[in-house]
Amino acid sequence: MYTTTQYYLALLWATGAYALFPDCTNGPLKNETICNSSASPLDRAKSLVALYTLEEKINATSSGSPGVERLGIPPYQWWSEGLHGIAGPYTNFSDSGEYSYSTSFPQPILMGAAFDDALITEVAKVISTEARAFNNANRTGLDFWTPNINPFRDPRWGRGQETPGEDAYHLSSYVKALIAGLQGDATDPYKRVVATCKHFAGYDMEDWNGNLRYQNDVQISQQDLVEYYLAPFQACVEANVGAFMCSYNALNGVPTCADPYLLQTILREHWGWTNEEQWVTSDCDAIQNVYLPHEWSATREQAVADSLIAGTDLDCGVYMQNHLPGAFAQKLVNETTLDQALVRQYSSLVRLGWFDSASSQPYRQLGWDAVATNASQALARRAATEGIVLLKNDGVLPLDLGSKSVGLFGDWANATTQLLGNYAGEPTYLHGPLYALQAANIKVNYAGGEPGGQGDPTTNRWLNLKPTMDASDVLIYVGGIDNSVEEEGQDRTSLAWTGAQLDVITQLADTGKPVVVVSMGGGQIDSSPIANNPKISALLWAGYPGQDGGSAIVDILTGKAAPAGRLPQTQYPSNYISEVPMTDMGLRPSENNPGRTYKWYNSTPVFEFGFGMHYTNFSAEIAPMNQSYSISDLVSRCPNINSTNLASCAHVSVPVKITNTGHIASDYVALGFLAGNFGPAPQPKKSLVAYQRLFNIAPGASSTAMLNLTLASLVRADEMGNKVLYPGDYSLQIDNGPLTMGNFTLTGSQMTLENWPQPPANRTSAGVSGLEGYFVAGFGSDQEHL
Amino acid sequence: MYTTTQYYLALLWATGAYALFPDCTNGPLKNETICNSSASPLDRAKSLVALYTLEEKINATSSGSPGVERLGIPPYQWWSEGLHGIAGPYTNFSDSGEYSYSTSFPQPILMGAAFDDALITEVAKVISTEARAFNNANRTGLDFWTPNINPFRDPRWGRGQETPGEDAYHLSSYVKALIAGLQGDATDPYKRVVATCKHFAGYDMEDWNGNLRYQNDVQISQQDLVEYYLAPFQACVEANVGAFMCSYNALNGVPTCADPYLLQTILREHWGWTNEEQWVTSDCDAIQNVYLPHEWSATREQAVADSLIAGTDLDCGVYMQNHLPGAFAQKLVNETTLDQALVRQYSSLVRLGWFDSASSQPYRQLGWDAVATNASQALARRAATEGIVLLKNDGVLPLDLGSKSVGLFGDWANATTQLLGNYAGEPTYLHGPLYALQAANIKVNYAGGEPGGQGDPTTNRWLNLKPTMDASDVLIYVGGIDNSVEEEGQDRTSLAWTGAQLDVITQLADTGKPVVVVSMGGGQIDSSPIANNPKISALLWAGYPGQDGGSAIVDILTGKAAPAGRLPQTQYPSNYISEVPMTDMGLRPSENNPGRTYKWYNSTPVFEFGFGMHYTNFSAEIAPMNQSYSISDLVSRCPNINSTNLASCAHVSVPVKITNTGHIASDYVALGFLAGNFGPAPQPKKSLVAYQRLFNIAPGASSTAMLNLTLASLVRADEMGNKVLYPGDYSLQIDNGPLTMGNFTLTGSQMTLENWPQPPANRTSAGVSGLEGYFVAGFGSDQEHL
Repeated sequence: MYTTTQYYLALLWATGAYALFPDCTNGPLKNETICNSSASPLDRAKSLVALYTLEEKINATSSGSPGVERLGIPPYQWWSEGLHGIAGPYTNFSDSGEYSYSTSFPQPILMGAAFDDALITEVAKVISTEARAFNNANRTGLDFWTPNINPFRDPRWGRGQETPGEDAYHLSSYVKALIAGLQGDATDPYKRVVATCKHFAGYDMEDWNGNLRYQNDVQISQQDLVEYYLAPFQACVEANVGAFMCSYNALNGVPTCADPYLLQTILREHWGWTNEEQWVTSDCDAIQNVYLPHEWSATREQAVADSLIAGTDLDCGVYMQNHLPGAFAQKLVNETTLDQALVRQYSSLVRLGWFDSASSQPYRQLGWDAVATNASQALARRAATEGIVLLKNDGVLPLDLGSKSVGLFGDWANATTQLLGNYAGEPTYLHGPLYALQAANIKVNYAGGEPGGQGDPTTNRWLNLKPTMDASDVLIYVGGIDNSVEEEGQDRTSLAWTGAQLDVITQLADTGKPVVVVSMGGGQIDSSPIANNPKISALLWAGYPGQDGGSAIVDILTGKAAPAGRLPQTQYPSNYISEVPMTDMGLRPSENNPGRTYKWYNSTPVFEFGFGMHYTNFSAEIAPMNQSYSISDLVSRCPNINSTNLASCAHVSVPVKITNTGHIASDYVALGFLAGNFGPAPQPKKSLVAYQRLFNIAPGASSTAMLNLTLASLVRADEMGNKVLYPGDYSLQIDNGPLTMGNFTLTGSQMTLENWPQPPANRTSAGVSGLEGYFVAGFGSDQEHL
Repeated sequence: MYTTTQYYLALLWATGAYALFPDCTNGPLKNETICNSSASPLDRAKSLVALYTLEEKINATSSGSPGVERLGIPPYQWWSEGLHGIAGPYTNFSDSGEYSYSTSFPQPILMGAAFDDALITEVAKVISTEARAFNNANRTGLDFWTPNINPFRDPRWGRGQETPGEDAYHLSSYVKALIAGLQGDATDPYKRVVATCKHFAGYDMEDWNGNLRYQNDVQISQQDLVEYYLAPFQACVEANVGAFMCSYNALNGVPTCADPYLLQTILREHWGWTNEEQWVTSDCDAIQNVYLPHEWSATREQAVADSLIAGTDLDCGVYMQNHLPGAFAQKLVNETTLDQALVRQYSSLVRLGWFDSASSQPYRQLGWDAVATNASQALARRAATEGIVLLKNDGVLPLDLGSKSVGLFGDWANATTQLLGNYAGEPTYLHGPLYALQAANIKVNYAGGEPGGQGDPTTNRWLNLKPTMDASDVLIYVGGIDNSVEEEGQDRTSLAWTGAQLDVITQLADTGKPVVVVSMGGGQIDSSPIANNPKISALLWAGYPGQDGGSAIVDILTGKAAPAGRLPQTQYPSNYISEVPMTDMGLRPSENNPGRTYKWYNSTPVFEFGFGMHYTNFSAEIAPMNQSYSISDLVSRCPNINSTNLASCAHVSVPVKITNTGHIASDYVALGFLAGNFGPAPQPKKSLVAYQRLFNIAPGASSTAMLNLTLASLVRADEMGNKVLYPGDYSLQIDNGPLTMGNFTLTGSQMTLENWPQPPANRTSAGVSGLEGYFVAGFGSDQEHL
C-alpha cells in the first residue's frame, strides 16, 4: 500500500523533513473547506478526509504519514518526544551552531520531588516554545508523545524515572500543570503543541524475569484501576489533553490498543474525551503486538481492524498501512471508522494551525532566539535545585568550607550524559558535580575514574582513593544508579547500592572526615547502610538533574539554595523485591505482597514518601475547621456535579500557616494527607490530597499554604470501582509526622458519587495464531505462582 | 601501599605498557639466580622474591603489577584476554596499519559445534602466535584469561556463548585441545602463552532476577560437582594449564577465592596441580566481593588474608595491594604465604622466558607478519563453516540459484560487530551475510534496516518488506539474538524469538517462496514455530561466526561447503524457563526442575544436543565388540591408575566406519554416547564419551572414526562424588537416533575408583560486616522459594 513516491517520502522523513506545511493560499486545496480558517476544525477536517482515496486514508494511519502529494498535503511525522526537553528520535538537532541544542530539564522524577505545579507549567512552556522554534526550522513535529504518566508502582521499573512518582494524586496534579504548559490555554486560538498521555493503561514493567512489556497481560482489579492506575489519565482528560497513547501490554486479557472498553467506554464515553481533535496513537509498534506476541487477533488484518475499531486512530509504525488493505478486502472494518480516525488527526492539526498561514500565528514566528534562553537555563537549574531531597544531615550541611578542600568520589562525580537520564535531546551544556565545584571556586581533589559504580566493580582505579582521601578535608561521594541498570526495556533487579559503592563509601567514612553522599538515579536505592552509619554526615537524593544538575547539587551542598524537595516515592528496604513479584499489580497487602506505595506498604520504609529534611525547622498551624459535615449536604452543595467531575466540587479550602522556626531561609512543601476511619477495611494509611510549595520563607517568618479539598479528595473506590463517599472520622495531616492535623467527621449514609462502567462479561479474541503458549515468561511469573 | 612512582606506573599500564622485560644482561639482577637461565624456574623465582621488601611483595599481588624499579623489574599487566582472538581491555590495538587488527575467530559456542579438537588446537596456536607478536610490540601481555570453561548449564546464561556448550565431556576434550594450542608442547623450552581456566567454580549466572554474580551463593551437590561443574576444570589440570581463575560466586557457602577446600584440597592436593609455576588469579574484583557483598570476611583485611591463605595468588584489582598492609599489621597472614604466591607468579614468567634474552627465544622474534596471515584468515572462515548446524531442510539447500535473486532480511543481514560476540578484539575485517552474498556474485535485494530484531519492534522500516519480497525469488532471513540480550552481566529472560521476528518470518513464508532462516546468537532460541511451519524450507544455526561469518554462512547456503556441525546444547522449548529457576543448579529432575542437559531433561527438546543434518546421508557400522568384561579385570589392567587419571586407562577403542550413502561430499561428526542400565537410579538418558570429526567423505566412500573409551568413560559419580564402576549393560550409541550401537556388559562387583575429598564439616566465616541480608536477590530466588 505504497507508491514509489511514498517510499521516497518515507526516506525523506527519516532524514528530517517534518514541517512542510500545506499551502492553503496557492495549493490545490485553497478553495476547499480545509483551508477556510473561519470554518470549524471538525468541518475543515471532514472536508479534507472526504477528498482522500481509500489508499490515501490508509497511508495516513502511519505515524510517518506520507501525506497526499496531489492535494498538496506534505508528509508529517507524528512522533516527537519531549519528556524533559525536546528529544529524538525524530527531532533533528544540527551538528553545531543554531538548533544544535535546546534546554534539557531534570527527569520528571526529580521535578516531581519539587512538588511545585507552577514550576512544571513553566518548564512545559519552555519545552513547547522550543518545540515551536524547532518546528519552524523543520526540525521536529508538533505532536509530543509525552508525558509518561503511569504511576511508579514498583521500585524496579526502569522507566519510573520518566514519571513524577508513585502517588496518583500527585501525578494528577502534576500532569494538569504540565499539559497546560505544553498545550497552552483553552482561549488560545492555536495549541502550542499537542501532548500525549501515555501509556494507557497499566504499563509499568519492562522485562521482569521474562515478562516482556510487549506480551504482558496485567491483571488489575477495578478498584485499583480507578484509585490508582487510571487516575492520572483521568486528570489528562480534565486537562483536555490532545492525545492518548495505548500501551504494549494487555490489561485484564485485552491488548489495550484493541480494547474498546478502555478506549471507548472508559476514555471517551465515561470520561467524555470526545472533542473532535482528540486522538489515540498506539505505542510503537503495539498494533503489531496485538497479533504477536499477544495473539489476540487471529491474523494481521484482524489485528489492525480490531485496533482501529477499538479507537486507535494512529499507528506508530506501518502495520496498519501494510495490513489495512487486506482488512478492507476482507470487510473486517468499514471506511467510516477509518474516516473518524483521520478526522481526529486532521482536526488536531487544524488546532495546531497546520493549515493556516504562518503570518497569523505568533508560534510560527518563533526562532532560534527563543531556544535555550538565559531564563530557560536558569529554570533548568532551579528545577533541579527544587527537586533535590535531603535525607540525612548531622549538621555538616550546608558546607562551611572556608579554605577546606573537597575530595570528590563516585562514578557520577564527573557525570555528563548520565545527568540527563533517558529520552533526552541535546542539552545546552552538561555541568556535572566536578565542573560545578570548580566553577564555585572550591578546591577539589577528584579521585577520577569510577571508584564504585555500575557493573563490574573492578578496583583497578582504586589506587587513587587513599591519596584523594588523605588530601581532602571533606569527602563527597556522588553515585548510585543510572541508565545502565534502569532504562526503557530494563527493570532493576536489585534495590541495593550496586557494585562496590558501599565499600568505597565506608572507606571514606572510616577516615573520620565529614562524608556526604549524593544518591543519583531515578529509582530509590535502599540507603539504610548510609542512614545508619554514624560516620556518614549527610545524604541527598538528586535523581537525574539535567543539564545543570551539578550546579544544582553544589548550590544545595554549599547552602546557596536550601533543600525542600520531598521523596516522590517510597524508599523500600532491599528485600522488598523478594517479597512481591513485579507482576503482582495489587496495591493492598496480600499473601505474596506487602503492599505498594506509602498508602498500603505494611512494613517500615527506609525513607517514606514525602520525606525531606531542611536546613531549618518549620512549624505548621491549621486554621480552625468545621468539625462535622452531612454527606447529603456536601453533595447537594454541588448541583452540577456528575460522576466524573468530583474534583470540581469544593469541600473545603484549608489555610495552613507555615512558620520558619530556624535560622536559614527556605522553601517548604506543605503536604496534606487525609487519614482516618472511613469506608471498609482495609483502609489506606493515608492519602495525599493536596500540596503547595511555599517559597523562601525567611527565618521567623510565616507563609500560608491553601490546601483545597474537594469531593474527589474524600471518596474511595469500592471493589467495583465505584466512587463512594463514606461517613466516618477524617484527619487532614500536614506533612509526615505530622506537624499538625485538622479533624472532621462526615455523617449520614454513604453515597455513591460515580458509577464505574463494568467490563463486558465475555471478552474473547477473534482467534488465535497457532503459537499458543510460545511466548512464555520466566520462572516466578504471575501465571505460574500466584 | 604505593609510592608516587607506582602511582604513575599505574597510569602507565592504563596507557598500554605491558612488555618491558627485565634486563638480565645489564640490569641490577644480572648476577642473581633469577637471571641464571640454567637454574630451575623455582630457584630463579625464589631468588627474586627473596630480594623484595614486604611492600614490594604486596604491590606484586595486583594484576597491574607495578614491578620493582630498584631491581629493574618493570610493570607487568597480568590481564590479557584471548577468548576467540586477542582482545581487550589490556590489548592495545593501534588505530591503523600494523597491529591495528588481528584474527577474530568464532565464539567458542560455534567452534564447539564443530566437534573438531584438532581445529581448536590450530585456532589456539594462531591466537598464541598473534599474542606473542603483539607482546613483542609491547601491546599485550603473556597471560591470557581464557578459556571460560564453565558448562553452559542453563540456556539463559548470557556468557554461554563463551563456552563450547553444555556437555562436560565435550568441554573437557575441547579444553585440552585449546590449552595445547595456547601453551604449546610440554617439551617446548618456553610456553607460548599461559592459559587461565575460569571461572572456578560453579559460575554460570550473571543476573537472574536480582541474583547477581557478585553475591550468588550457588548450592551444588558433590555428585553434580564431580560429574559436571568441575569436570572441565579437571581436564585443565590434565592439560597442565598454567593458571586458574576463582569466580565471583560463593559455592556451597564459601566465596571461591577464599575457599581452601576448592583451591587447595581439590585443585592442588586431589588433582595434583602443584607445579611451581601454576597460579590462581581472582576474577575482577572477586576479592573485594569476599568482603562485600558476600560478607564472608568481617573486614577488608580479613578478606585479603582469607583469599591469599586459601590459595589465590593474584588479585585482579588492587584490593590486596590496598589492604594486605593492614592484614600484615593485624597478623592475619604471614609472609611465607605471600612469598608462595609470588614464587608461583615469577616461576610462570620464567617459563614464558620473561627473564631470558630475546635472542634465545623464537617466540620473541614474531612480528606483524605473523598476524592475520592468509592461513589464519582461512582458518577463521573454516572454523565458522565447520560449526554451522543445519536444523531443517526440505531440499532447498544447498541453493541452486542460477539467475535467481535472493531477498535478504533480518537484523543480522548486514551484521558487522554483531558477528563477533563478546570479548572480541579488532578483527581483520567484518564480512556479514550481505557482503558475502554480493562477494559471491549473487543478486541480492536487501530489505535494509532491521525488520524484526532486538528490542523495540517498531515497524517503521517495514515498508521495505513487501517490495523486497516481491522482487526476490528466494528469501533469506538472518536474525535471532545478539549481545543486546545475552552478555556478560545479562542473562536472557526469554527463549523465544525476540521482537517481531516471527511476524516478519511468517510474512516471508506466506509468500510461498522458498524461505531460509539463519538463527544467530549463542544461546539457542526455541525455533519450533519455524521447524513446524511447512512454508519455511530450511533453518540453520550459526552462533557468533566471527570476522568472516557471512562468508561461512554463504558457503553453507550455496553448497560450497557442506554442513556438519552439531548442536552443542539442547534447544529447549520456550516454556523451559518457567519450569526451573536459574538458581537451581541441580542436573537431575526434581519437583521444580525438569532436568538439565540432554542427559537429564525429562521432556522433549525442540532440537536435541548433538543434532545436525547434512546435505547427504550417512550410515555407521561398529566393528564387533567384546560382549563382556569383568570389572576386576578392567581395573587390574591399569596397574598405574590412581584416583584422578582414570582417563589415562583405556577400556576399548572402537572403530566406527562411516559411509556417505548420499550424493554430496561432506564432513561427518561421529558422536559416541554411552547408555544402558548400570548404577543406581536415576540414570542419565545417555552420556557423550567420545567424538571424532571425519572430513570430506565423498559420496559412496567411507571413513573410520576411532572412539576411545577409558575407565573415565564408564564410571559414574555417587552422591558423595566418588567415582564408581558399576556392573550392568552398556550400549555405545553412534549419533542421535542412533545410527548403530555396540553393546557390552560389565560383570562382578562395583568398585570405587576415586574417593572424592569431602568438604570440611564446619565452614564458617571469620565474621560478618553488619550488612546482613542487605544484598537481597529478587522474588523467586533460590533462597526464598525452594
